Amino acid sequence: MPKYVYLFGGGKADGNGGMRNLLGGKGANLAEMAGHKDLKLPVPPGFTITTEVCSYYYKNKKKYPPELKKQVETAMKSVEKIIGKKFGDTVNPLLVSVRSGARSSMPGMMETVLNVGLTTKTIPALIAKTNNDRFVYDAYRRLIMMYSDVVMEKGAGIEPADEQGIRKQLERIMAEKKSEKGVTQDTELTSEDLKELAALFKIRVKEVLGVEFPDDPFEQVWGGISAVFSSWNGKRAVDYRKIEGIPDDWGTAVNVQSMVFGNMGEESATGVAFSRNPGNGDPRFYGEYLVNAQGEDVVAGIRTPAPINDAAKSEHNRDERTLEETMPKLYKELFAIQKKLEKHYKDMQDIEFTIEEGKLWMLQCRNGKRNGQAAVKMAVDMAKEKLISKEEAVLRVSPSQLMELLLPIISANAEKTARVIAKGLPAGPGAAAGRIVFSSEDAVQAAAEGRQTILVREETNPEDVKGMRAAQAILTARGGMTSHAALVARGWGKCCIVGCAAISVDAATKTMTIDGKTYNEGDWITLNGTKGIVYEGKLDMVDIEPSENTVLFDFLSMCDKVKVLKVRANADTPEDAKKARAFGAEGIGLFRTEHMFYGENSEKPLFALRKMIASDTVEERKAALNELFPYVKEAIKGTLEAMDGCPVTIRFLDPPLHEFIPREESAQKLVSDSLGITIEEFKSRAEKLHETNPMMGHRGARLGITYPEITEMQARAIFEVAAELLKEGKKVFPEIMIPVICSANELKHQKNIVKRVYNEVLQQEGIKKIGYSFGTMIEIPRAAIRASRMAEEAEFFSFGTNDLTQMSFGFSRDDVGAFLSDYREKGILLDDPFQTIDIEGVGRLMKYAISEVRAINPAFKIGICGEHGGDPKSVEFCHQLGMTYVSCSPFRVPIARLASAQAAAKGISAGAKSNKGKTKPAAKAKAAAKAKRK
Amino acid sequence: MPKYVYLFGGGKADGNGGMRNLLGGKGANLAEMAGHKDLKLPVPPGFTITTEVCSYYYKNKKKYPPELKKQVETAMKSVEKIIGKKFGDTVNPLLVSVRSGARSSMPGMMETVLNVGLTTKTIPALIAKTNNDRFVYDAYRRLIMMYSDVVMEKGAGIEPADEQGIRKQLERIMAEKKSEKGVTQDTELTSEDLKELAALFKIRVKEVLGVEFPDDPFEQVWGGISAVFSSWNGKRAVDYRKIEGIPDDWGTAVNVQSMVFGNMGEESATGVAFSRNPGNGDPRFYGEYLVNAQGEDVVAGIRTPAPINDAAKSEHNRDERTLEETMPKLYKELFAIQKKLEKHYKDMQDIEFTIEEGKLWMLQCRNGKRNGQAAVKMAVDMAKEKLISKEEAVLRVSPSQLMELLLPIISANAEKTARVIAKGLPAGPGAAAGRIVFSSEDAVQAAAEGRQTILVREETNPEDVKGMRAAQAILTARGGMTSHAALVARGWGKCCIVGCAAISVDAATKTMTIDGKTYNEGDWITLNGTKGIVYEGKLDMVDIEPSENTVLFDFLSMCDKVKVLKVRANADTPEDAKKARAFGAEGIGLFRTEHMFYGENSEKPLFALRKMIASDTVEERKAALNELFPYVKEAIKGTLEAMDGCPVTIRFLDPPLHEFIPREESAQKLVSDSLGITIEEFKSRAEKLHETNPMMGHRGARLGITYPEITEMQARAIFEVAAELLKEGKKVFPEIMIPVICSANELKHQKNIVKRVYNEVLQQEGIKKIGYSFGTMIEIPRAAIRASRMAEEAEFFSFGTNDLTQMSFGFSRDDVGAFLSDYREKGILLDDPFQTIDIEGVGRLMKYAISEVRAINPAFKIGICGEHGGDPKSVEFCHQLGMTYVSCSPFRVPIARLASAQAAAKGISAGAKSNKGKTKPAAKAKAAAKAKRK
Repeated sequence: MPKYVYLFGGGKADGNGGMRNLLGGKGANLAEMAGHKDLKLPVPPGFTITTEVCSYYYKNKKKYPPELKKQVETAMKSVEKIIGKKFGDTVNPLLVSVRSGARSSMPGMMETVLNVGLTTKTIPALIAKTNNDRFVYDAYRRLIMMYSDVVMEKGAGIEPADEQGIRKQLERIMAEKKSEKGVTQDTELTSEDLKELAALFKIRVKEVLGVEFPDDPFEQVWGGISAVFSSWNGKRAVDYRKIEGIPDDWGTAVNVQSMVFGNMGEESATGVAFSRNPGNGDPRFYGEYLVNAQGEDVVAGIRTPAPINDAAKSEHNRDERTLEETMPKLYKELFAIQKKLEKHYKDMQDIEFTIEEGKLWMLQCRNGKRNGQAAVKMAVDMAKEKLISKEEAVLRVSPSQLMELLLPIISANAEKTARVIAKGLPAGPGAAAGRIVFSSEDAVQAAAEGRQTILVREETNPEDVKGMRAAQAILTARGGMTSHAALVARGWGKCCIVGCAAISVDAATKTMTIDGKTYNEGDWITLNGTKGIVYEGKLDMVDIEPSENTVLFDFLSMCDKVKVLKVRANADTPEDAKKARAFGAEGIGLFRTEHMFYGENSEKPLFALRKMIASDTVEERKAALNELFPYVKEAIKGTLEAMDGCPVTIRFLDPPLHEFIPREESAQKLVSDSLGITIEEFKSRAEKLHETNPMMGHRGARLGITYPEITEMQARAIFEVAAELLKEGKKVFPEIMIPVICSANELKHQKNIVKRVYNEVLQQEGIKKIGYSFGTMIEIPRAAIRASRMAEEAEFFSFGTNDLTQMSFGFSRDDVGAFLSDYREKGILLDDPFQTIDIEGVGRLMKYAISEVRAINPAFKIGICGEHGGDPKSVEFCHQLGMTYVSCSPFRVPIARLASAQAAAKGISAGAKSNKGKTKPAAKAKAAAKAKRK
Repeated sequence: MPKYVYLFGGGKADGNGGMRNLLGGKGANLAEMAGHKDLKLPVPPGFTITTEVCSYYYKNKKKYPPELKKQVETAMKSVEKIIGKKFGDTVNPLLVSVRSGARSSMPGMMETVLNVGLTTKTIPALIAKTNNDRFVYDAYRRLIMMYSDVVMEKGAGIEPADEQGIRKQLERIMAEKKSEKGVTQDTELTSEDLKELAALFKIRVKEVLGVEFPDDPFEQVWGGISAVFSSWNGKRAVDYRKIEGIPDDWGTAVNVQSMVFGNMGEESATGVAFSRNPGNGDPRFYGEYLVNAQGEDVVAGIRTPAPINDAAKSEHNRDERTLEETMPKLYKELFAIQKKLEKHYKDMQDIEFTIEEGKLWMLQCRNGKRNGQAAVKMAVDMAKEKLISKEEAVLRVSPSQLMELLLPIISANAEKTARVIAKGLPAGPGAAAGRIVFSSEDAVQAAAEGRQTILVREETNPEDVKGMRAAQAILTARGGMTSHAALVARGWGKCCIVGCAAISVDAATKTMTIDGKTYNEGDWITLNGTKGIVYEGKLDMVDIEPSENTVLFDFLSMCDKVKVLKVRANADTPEDAKKARAFGAEGIGLFRTEHMFYGENSEKPLFALRKMIASDTVEERKAALNELFPYVKEAIKGTLEAMDGCPVTIRFLDPPLHEFIPREESAQKLVSDSLGITIEEFKSRAEKLHETNPMMGHRGARLGITYPEITEMQARAIFEVAAELLKEGKKVFPEIMIPVICSANELKHQKNIVKRVYNEVLQQEGIKKIGYSFGTMIEIPRAAIRASRMAEEAEFFSFGTNDLTQMSFGFSRDDVGAFLSDYREKGILLDDPFQTIDIEGVGRLMKYAISEVRAINPAFKIGICGEHGGDPKSVEFCHQLGMTYVSCSPFRVPIARLASAQAAAKGISAGAKSNKGKTKPAAKAKAAAKAKRK
């Protein structure tokens, strides 16, 4: 017979903490606390109905397995025996709670019913036993309120309008009673009042729901169980699972447990505690409690709970007496238990306890949730305390927790009360407040005058870059997570929300309209870029200081010890390069030469570039390239210098040329005049450069092949700079990277030019050698398919996963906004492939390419420099593929270091497991893996 | 010791016909003719220096292997023994020719030196022996002219200006001599004149080239050999190889062969013949000859050759006496030889012969070039005669030859009334109209600019090859059916008229004169190459009617018996569908619903579509779709009806919507008015549809997912039409094909809609079943990568290789022109991947997808409907991949049938080979392959 019901309590348990999948997190932990030989904690006895019953329930039209009834009744008998009370008894009645408990915590998303077992027959017995009729009637009215709502209404699939819900109706009856009695607090109602209320409640329940409130204890229990299972598919739970990525078929367990009461007088209490402070990681025991209260009172926030000890004191509760003071013996017992639990679980524990007339009961324990700062602090501390290994420690901090330490945030209080005016895609995390501006120029102007702005655009283009830089944040009506705005913002670690479709931007009148309301230039808004929410007005910000955060530093150093995959940064300027080093980058994985044509001081190089683009003959072009040459050298030199001692991958000119053509006639005239041609001729040349699908057009290596002089100029700039720096005693390792390659022959063609120029520069500079390497982006699907051939012409690969994703999916980054959200909503795509590598599609192509190349040359250097290099899931995938490094924006480097370390840690713990816990082979495996990626 | 020299002659040969790679085509055939036991033909003895020597020569700085000298000398001794003359002898001297001979024929592209061995010492001996001093001095002056040009100038890498070349200089000396003597023909010069000329020639050679003309016979031979090897890398040869796709590393062999002379009097002659007529396939022996002439005189087109027999008579030469009449015994001998050769080689033979004083010598035989009509006729005839198998027969016709039979012809009406301006020899059949150009360069230039031309020349020479390729047709004033122009045109299947004596060409002034009327560069003329008629002006062309050409019909039927891969057509209208059936299509592989929005009668459906596109709500969109619905039905019905009994793959709406937005304000206004919105609102909606890279934008299935009502409407139209046709007793097999799929989830989403509509239509129409299937395009790289998952949601795949190529390469078809020609020229891409499937890139992706799917379901239907479906190389690849069918434009269907048959024939002959020639297993393999693709 299948076992559906697992008993716990009285120093024993059928299950244990390892049975989360079957018993849910709560059930497994109750079993562990009650039954594990090292714990045997005072847990109110009860039983868990397994998640398999939930699956059965949904597969069989909400019917239970036939064996269940018997098993539940048998378990109830055992509970009765342990606690010495009887369910439905008229002398010593047992009350139980019925609670959900899924594999993964889903706080507040499913239903709970307390005080189950209170009936007209058991009430007198309980009053007799407790000598506390007020307590009993209060429990009864709570049961009716909860049960009618959860079981009789929601559980039956009835969905009344908000204010018509049975709970609201009963609450109104109670409010009337209070006003009738002239009191404001529930606690001021007398036992008689409560008794009357219970009677009134039952009448209303019958009126509204058409059935009597059940007076049979087992009917109540089964109702509770069904309500919990039903709530697994309630809207709230389903939505939550979608957000958290919890599979629908996991199902929930149900825990039926003897009630203990913290509200039986001054010797009773209830509380929630943590073995360390979940808000900041302080390693001292932390918690709150309330005397004479039920658990829900602590959470509900109606009464201000008191600190359990001095460490838990805050501004708000420092005048309350601590548990340590009021019940020193019980505090000591609790303190010992939390110590034991933390040691047992090797993690910070979130525990719920109740003291019933001087006896301590443990109601729950679980690994405690924590914010980023606390997570990092605990990881570092626990590793230092040798509670956990370095590998375990790095796995304790999620990338988004680490992110919290790196971003300014809106103050929690301000956000709570703020007015949300729109939602979009969270393209650049962090928060920012500013006055709306609608043009790049206005943003620059405002910045010059020291005003904070949010640049609001339909969408951005390279000409907006200055304004984007100047603004505090960027908000666009169109575009996806990898649109121009999103990319640029992420690179700078700037707050940005894109694809905010509710906004209509009218740049001409400098207004935007949302839901019929118009916002003008100069109006304040605040962005939560982490969540993609736009607020009205100026909200308070809380700043963070990553560089001064020694805990952060210690944590990331620990990550570096664990990780195998190297982390580089994408950086285009000396400033970015310095930032990248500060963030721990081990090199530059992507230096874009075209950066010099955007942003500050770009006028002169951009002008020369425009002349080059508008050239019609090799001679004109060479003249323009000569003009451009010193700027290219200057740009490269600054970054190579800043990265002294580290490799710098320099990508040759990549974007389609027409992107740089000036749109304004005045700028066009300057260029045409300098070339000695008419503006009509200029326009006609520019027109020729127009492309229908520029993303797949004449760019990257294709330019270098039709105009070899462009490749030559870039190679010369790099080698001359390298020679100059070598002479200054610097250590430089330029890596020349050719973009947009689809055929190895292209690479060969470009390599020949680079080699020739290399030899010319050696001769000219009179030096013997520059340690450079020559490689290619793998960003066109065909390049991945032809990887083994590519490897014959290159010394390294860098996956350009942005373009690779675009072309593998046939998704234009700039246009995908039109349907991507639809695809996500309809479940066609689970992740945005521009954020997280599409492992089954693009990832297979990468895997194929890497396995082809590594089969020939196991030491071949392979990196990634797309946006995915800073995405934790993608970093893990890169680790699994055996890549050499990832490269991401400087700001994402710490995240990549963490993700890289986590990937290695997971691999090692997996390796260690298969080696039966021995650590030696794991260490060896890691060493071997590291050696492979030298 | 490696063998570099292969002897032939005297009934023996070191080599044989199978040694083409080593001995070149000419050398192998000479060996075969001389030595094969069934042939032992009278071949002037000689020897072949292998292609390996050519490779050695280029690998070793133009040095020969040390063993070569000895081997050549030994071979020469053997030749002397066979023929009974001695090289350089002062009594009975042997003269030899030195000729090239590559693996693949390269007519006229490399050098030849004749009469080698004539020196001041051998001249008197030869005079004494022949008693013909005029002949000897004529041979000597020819040797000097040829040798000084080919060996001493070109062979030495000297490149003088055109008129300064040594040959031109010597020709001028000869012209002076003729005018001095008051004669016009070379033949009118006396032996004394020729002797003087030889002396003058030698002086001029010394003056111009700085060295004496060599008087040592072995020096002459080595000079000739080197000149031949050098000419392998001459510009002409390199250009020709590029056009013909002949690898540069094949190299040429050199044939040194005893001279025999057709110009030793009236008992001597020389000729070129074919075992069947190469111009139309007539199975009778065909050829031309000249009495008392050397071979070059026939080819050069200076004298009009006579027909060898009645079958070879034409308008131009019907008054000449045939060889059959003048030398009946020798003709009989020749006739028997050609019969024997054709039977031996199982193919039409192109033979060169010389009669020296009554003795017949075979100088060369090779498989004869032929035009398309002849190729098809011969293939059908030879298969009927059982000379070759069906498989061999289909392999005998190249796709481009078949194409000649499918090319448009001059409309009968136009031809009736057109003005005939000249008649010539029908050297290349077909028709062409173009503007006159007079130089190769002009033809190339015009082709680059997309202009159609006819290249008009006095006669062509190998230097004209590029222009001949570029022009639509070739017209020459001189030359016979075996002239250079005729030969080259025949090889390419190009329309060509030669020997059009009425024309006077003045290349310098770029004019031609016919009957006193002058035609200028740029004037239109039209050629009927099948009849040899030149018309004034540009005549209308019409498509051919395949059913009217019984030879073509027989040939294609033979192809169908051999082929395995099915052939379908891409057709969007009932007219196209009918044409496709007429061309032999077995179904429609691509019916594009959007066709109804282009071309004739598109106003109303286009208007409804535009309304749909400009809709902002589901209601507006549904209203517009309802309006569109009857047009969609009508379009589908016509084609399904025309293809009664055959499957029709209907692709759902594919292009980006904004393509259909009207650009003119008047059209915009009509749409906005009908929607009841302002034109500004219309423009703003249209603006939202604009995309940066539309090829990767919101199109295909993506539209059907964001707007399911579009999918629904199309499915409903198909099922309603199918139901109606079924009721009319038609057999319909619609295949619904969803385009632009990148994820199987998209397919599932669309399938659910289609299924629902299907059931609704069944109910509505009261029928039980419509035999339809549901499938997808594989055109996005990710779809290929995820093929096995796709196959779970689809019943068939059709590779959309156009888009697959675009995205695999990152080449936008619309923009690739900017660099593709550069890529071809620089050798980065050998083929245009949009014409021929890129086997190593895109092809690998296809192979991967197919193997994944077929591993699960070996019978899964897989086709191709990109442009590549009509490209022979690509069709062969599809056959190799085991696809079910290819689909191409109706006009290409015959080509695809041929290519499919050839692929199967190659496979079978490969299979048969491995089975030691047994045909049973091959037939079995074919049957099995066919079964697989049901």
